[in-house]
Amino acid sequence: MKIKIINPNTTWSMTHKIGEAAQSLQLPNVDILAVSPDFGPASIEGFYDESMACLGLLDEIKKGDAIEECDAYIIACFGDPGLDAARELTRKPVIGVAEAAMRSASYISTGFSVVTTLLRTVVIAEHLLDKYGTRAHCRKVRACELAVLELENPLSNAYQTILKECKMALEEDNAGAIVLGCAGMADLCKRLQLELGVPVIDGVVAATVTAYGLVAAGIQTSKKGDYAYPLPKTYTGHMAAYAPK
Amino acid sequence: MKIKIINPNTTWSMTHKIGEAAQSLQLPNVDILAVSPDFGPASIEGFYDESMACLGLLDEIKKGDAIEECDAYIIACFGDPGLDAARELTRKPVIGVAEAAMRSASYISTGFSVVTTLLRTVVIAEHLLDKYGTRAHCRKVRACELAVLELENPLSNAYQTILKECKMALEEDNAGAIVLGCAGMADLCKRLQLELGVPVIDGVVAATVTAYGLVAAGIQTSKKGDYAYPLPKTYTGHMAAYAPK
Amino acid sequence: MKIKIINPNTTWSMTHKIGEAAQSLQLPNVDILAVSPDFGPASIEGFYDESMACLGLLDEIKKGDAIEECDAYIIACFGDPGLDAARELTRKPVIGVAEAAMRSASYISTGFSVVTTLLRTVVIAEHLLDKYGTRAHCRKVRACELAVLELENPLSNAYQTILKECKMALEEDNAGAIVLGCAGMADLCKRLQLELGVPVIDGVVAATVTAYGLVAAGIQTSKKGDYAYPLPKTYTGHMAAYAPK
Amino acid sequence: MKIKIINPNTTWSMTHKIGEAAQSLQLPNVDILAVSPDFGPASIEGFYDESMACLGLLDEIKKGDAIEECDAYIIACFGDPGLDAARELTRKPVIGVAEAAMRSASYISTGFSVVTTLLRTVVIAEHLLDKYGTRAHCRKVRACELAVLELENPLSNAYQTILKECKMALEEDNAGAIVLGCAGMADLCKRLQLELGVPVIDGVVAATVTAYGLVAAGIQTSKKGDYAYPLPKTYTGHMAAYAPK
Amino acid sequence: MKIKIINPNTTWSMTHKIGEAAQSLQLPNVDILAVSPDFGPASIEGFYDESMACLGLLDEIKKGDAIEECDAYIIACFGDPGLDAARELTRKPVIGVAEAAMRSASYISTGFSVVTTLLRTVVIAEHLLDKYGTRAHCRKVRACELAVLELENPLSNAYQTILKECKMALEEDNAGAIVLGCAGMADLCKRLQLELGVPVIDGVVAATVTAYGLVAAGIQTSKKGDYAYPLPKTYTGHMAAYAPK
Amino acid sequence: MKIKIINPNTTWSMTHKIGEAAQSLQLPNVDILAVSPDFGPASIEGFYDESMACLGLLDEIKKGDAIEECDAYIIACFGDPGLDAARELTRKPVIGVAEAAMRSASYISTGFSVVTTLLRTVVIAEHLLDKYGTRAHCRKVRACELAVLELENPLSNAYQTILKECKMALEEDNAGAIVLGCAGMADLCKRLQLELGVPVIDGVVAATVTAYGLVAAGIQTSKKGDYAYPLPKTYTGHMAAYAPK
Repeated sequence: MKIKIINPNTTWSMTHKIGEAAQSLQLPNVDILAVSPDFGPASIEGFYDESMACLGLLDEIKKGDAIEECDAYIIACFGDPGLDAARELTRKPVIGVAEAAMRSASYISTGFSVVTTLLRTVVIAEHLLDKYGTRAHCRKVRACELAVLELENPLSNAYQTILKECKMALEEDNAGAIVLGCAGMADLCKRLQLELGVPVIDGVVAATVTAYGLVAAGIQTSKKGDYAYPLPKTYTGHMAAYAPK
Repeated sequence: MKIKIINPNTTWSMTHKIGEAAQSLQLPNVDILAVSPDFGPASIEGFYDESMACLGLLDEIKKGDAIEECDAYIIACFGDPGLDAARELTRKPVIGVAEAAMRSASYISTGFSVVTTLLRTVVIAEHLLDKYGTRAHCRKVRACELAVLELENPLSNAYQTILKECKMALEEDNAGAIVLGCAGMADLCKRLQLELGVPVIDGVVAATVTAYGLVAAGIQTSKKGDYAYPLPKTYTGHMAAYAPK
Repeated sequence: MKIKIINPNTTWSMTHKIGEAAQSLQLPNVDILAVSPDFGPASIEGFYDESMACLGLLDEIKKGDAIEECDAYIIACFGDPGLDAARELTRKPVIGVAEAAMRSASYISTGFSVVTTLLRTVVIAEHLLDKYGTRAHCRKVRACELAVLELENPLSNAYQTILKECKMALEEDNAGAIVLGCAGMADLCKRLQLELGVPVIDGVVAATVTAYGLVAAGIQTSKKGDYAYPLPKTYTGHMAAYAPK
Repeated sequence: MKIKIINPNTTWSMTHKIGEAAQSLQLPNVDILAVSPDFGPASIEGFYDESMACLGLLDEIKKGDAIEECDAYIIACFGDPGLDAARELTRKPVIGVAEAAMRSASYISTGFSVVTTLLRTVVIAEHLLDKYGTRAHCRKVRACELAVLELENPLSNAYQTILKECKMALEEDNAGAIVLGCAGMADLCKRLQLELGVPVIDGVVAATVTAYGLVAAGIQTSKKGDYAYPLPKTYTGHMAAYAPK
Repeated sequence: MKIKIINPNTTWSMTHKIGEAAQSLQLPNVDILAVSPDFGPASIEGFYDESMACLGLLDEIKKGDAIEECDAYIIACFGDPGLDAARELTRKPVIGVAEAAMRSASYISTGFSVVTTLLRTVVIAEHLLDKYGTRAHCRKVRACELAVLELENPLSNAYQTILKECKMALEEDNAGAIVLGCAGMADLCKRLQLELGVPVIDGVVAATVTAYGLVAAGIQTSKKGDYAYPLPKTYTGHMAAYAPK
Repeated sequence: MKIKIINPNTTWSMTHKIGEAAQSLQLPNVDILAVSPDFGPASIEGFYDESMACLGLLDEIKKGDAIEECDAYIIACFGDPGLDAARELTRKPVIGVAEAAMRSASYISTGFSVVTTLLRTVVIAEHLLDKYGTRAHCRKVRACELAVLELENPLSNAYQTILKECKMALEEDNAGAIVLGCAGMADLCKRLQLELGVPVIDGVVAATVTAYGLVAAGIQTSKKGDYAYPLPKTYTGHMAAYAPK
């Protein structure tokens, strides 16, 4: 089985970290392919960055189907950008890390809190809580005002900042579990869980096992109405090559 | 006052029709600028088309602020693609036609029905009903299985097909008003309203007067948190020029 | 175009202020007619006051249709009393200031807070958030415990009290915009917006441009089911004259 | 114990019928006082009628507290007009028939349907379902297009019309119980229940036992914030006498 | 009329207290039968305890129908364990104390707070708020971290602890009424109400008058679909005697 | 890894079928242990059956932790009986088949329909849709009026009956996927999927891969508040052995 994890930003140090988190699961007979697009935003911290990341991301989905023979795809950015579009492109399951993290947390707690990076992205996470039907299972979305790329900076105090916010979630929100609100936090998950003593869910890991499960179960994306393939049509100008066939 | 209406697909016959609908309002001292991007999908009929249309659309927003001195923007596609991203880019009001149509209909009826093109886009409209808080005001979203470009084809029976679906909405859904679910239906609005005897709301017209009103009232997009400008950062590869500064 | 703004309380100093706020928009070819009923509560601060204000308010709607040839009506009290009844009486658009303010704020922010007068009216505003589908767009309704008529008292410290509450909304609620929760605050709007640096929405202004837009677009209240004219019938006793014909 | 049932319309034949329904409960030591106001609409079939009925209704509440020494009040019209205002006026429990019927039905079925009079009042019932948190317990609101006063006309076929609609509710909606959507149907309740074989809830009876229960339990309306007495103030013109003291 | 109140835990001191609270209503011609099952948990403080309490509870319902000729049943534990199952077993009304308390509070306030025992049971109360459609009427569920059996311990400081939490509810939540979140608090209700000056609702009392009212009104549990009798079938092993016939 | 699947009814032919469905996934290094309790209902078709099934079910959870060293548990009945109680008893993930099926379907379609057995169980499935936040992803819950044990009867026409209802779901509900609403349908899943051409989700398979994934990811049930172990206490009478220690 081949699972392709697409980090839609182009910071490869983060992509490697994400790949390692998935590899560490040691799922039998599973190849993990962790990539970033060739072009696009170095980090995703708002709606505009998300829109701009879709082109490269969707290219990777197409390449995955056409060349790499992937069995499932993961979108490794907590805003799940391009998720619905990706599902139109392929019959293979496509899983967003926010979606998988939120739903996985609902299996093991009655109320989780999300700890994310910048305050401006809280509204994106809250929108996803609604979209995925997980609003009632979430106690609060918290930001620790870390820029995404600070997570790649060994000199930043990222771990301590996140830990502190998690502790506040446990005390003030009465949260039973923590969902990490950025794929770039994947490497901190186990350490946080150990220190906090409650389940800490990293979306990369949650999405990887979810993708694995759907493939194992033979469950693929519906092509009836819901996520039918894009209709063939003309795309004009320099986007002609992106036209669905 | 200059209002720029961006049809995010590249079918200029539709763009002209949209522009005419807005012009016909004869708002005093208002310049209507109706455009399509230079590149992108010829029509938008799903999530993938929406994602691919954002690039050209957002370019037009930037051009509008940097060169054309626009006072407001309208996204003239019923899925309101790129709306949140567009609002990050500019302080000027940005209005989606679905958003304006749904909210306008809520002022004059207790329950409207949406009549849209393809069945596969119903789920997009339903998602917007939730996003805009108008789900409870909508009786039903109905598709008449017309491809978007059939609206540009004088030989298609588009008007009669839409009329028939509208009549079913009045009878079966007990709708008090109709919302047209595609910007390409703008030219049919008055004729339908006359024949049906209930308010028929075209999003282009609804969005134009909404944009006019916000500008007149001096109300602009919040730059505190919500729709703050995109953070300056590197975009790599052939998207470098799209990086926020 | 003639827009009639009805302040349903009988405090004409407030009515003048409301009229001035609408006039200051300088909408071309628009006559603003700002009135109070001849009889009723001096201020509206609860459900009972609202009920008692409806008689005079609805009289003004009837007069507007029968004699004054108005094109639209605005109910200038943040509880939007009598709104549904008024819509039954006339084909002309009727806009409530709360409704217009809440919806307008949704176009320019992802989350606003309402700052209103007395704590006891918070529950009324919250009910309207539900009715208009704007609950999810509102971070919090805040009261500053000012009686409505304190807004007419030049010796009260109303501006500073409201300013302070607005600042708390920005900090504690992470609000991106402020909605003023009383028509009597119309004159404070621009000053607050300047000092706070975020959009501040006054319902009178928001409703005036919304009414203007609907009239310009030829959109009137549905008379099919939803807001059909009241059925002709007998009213007994001293209310006989109020019977629908 | 004295329970005052106020039929807010002025059709006394209906008022007597309503009184008889309550009397037939034979609650021990309970005086039932069934009245209509001296003035107002002969029937209530929309928002305007509701607004116009509030004056007389609220007069009866005041008279009940000041002179008649009532222990509880019932508003016997399925739209529950003036309910919140009435609760501000008195510490005694005030129960609406729609509220009591909907909540009572929730105790004995997982899903009820409402059968009401005119189609135009369906939206009023639906709004109350939301207000009382009973939307999820209701399968459908059905109208049988009977004018309210047809229920007083012995020559009308009202019983058969309602029976037919109830049967459709059981079959098509899979309803487990029926809520009668008009206080004027109180006399038909037992006959319908017998013929249909499922619980049929009349709001007058449901409200009477609810009021009895709250009085017996010593539970009165909160005067802290929620339903505090109206603030003393000036009412001008011919409504001066209605001013709260 | 005979109302059977079943305390699903086996602590008879609590059962007696519960019975006294219901007796003190002095409902005319009503026999109150307050019992605990012969076996089961001494207190109910979580989902497991609830599940384990159902056997004894449902036995008592069966005995009530088969032998004791009861007219209604009350489940006197704030989690309303086994409520739906009990309703399947009998045509007589079955009322949960949480359900009755929450709905009763909605008749006399616009927003109540629940004060319950252990923090771990808050999620159970919140689930019931959703189930009964009362989430919007509840400001907050508060725990005072008292174990249930501390309420039976005269040396515990239970009253003061609960009083303090109630005061916080009034101040911080702006609650207009208090719902006591444990049947074991029934004896504290009047004292709290006197000291707090707002309505304090005890579920035992609320459920007793609700049951009385439904019986008086001749309203019984629907046996159409919703709560139809359990289908006859085999139960194996030592539960054979529990099989529905 | 050892996954224990507990069919809470005592019909072992169904249990074997369920076990085979899970075995057929051939998850590497996974032992599937499919069991029924020693005692309890032969089938589960309502709330009472569910309550009565909990005892045996929870026994199997305890045995799984104490003796069998299981890594995860699955409750193989579409009502997910005892799920919250089971989660209190163990740190190992416990997955309900309804929960897993509904959430899995949300990953691969925008709207699924549930096809279940008896009409009377529809309300149970609808309640779970709310509990799991999947109501908006479900188009309709459909019953085909098959008793559960008809699924074990080779002479019944179960497959054709279910197939017919599935086809109606695709046509009338516009469903993109089918969720099978009974664990006893596990053996029909692949055949239905083949014939219908859309994803058909069986809860047993969905729960098995979900459990596998959580174990692989090291995610266990939170013991902080949410699902903390039952508090040690006395259970009286013949249930003394069930007391938590």
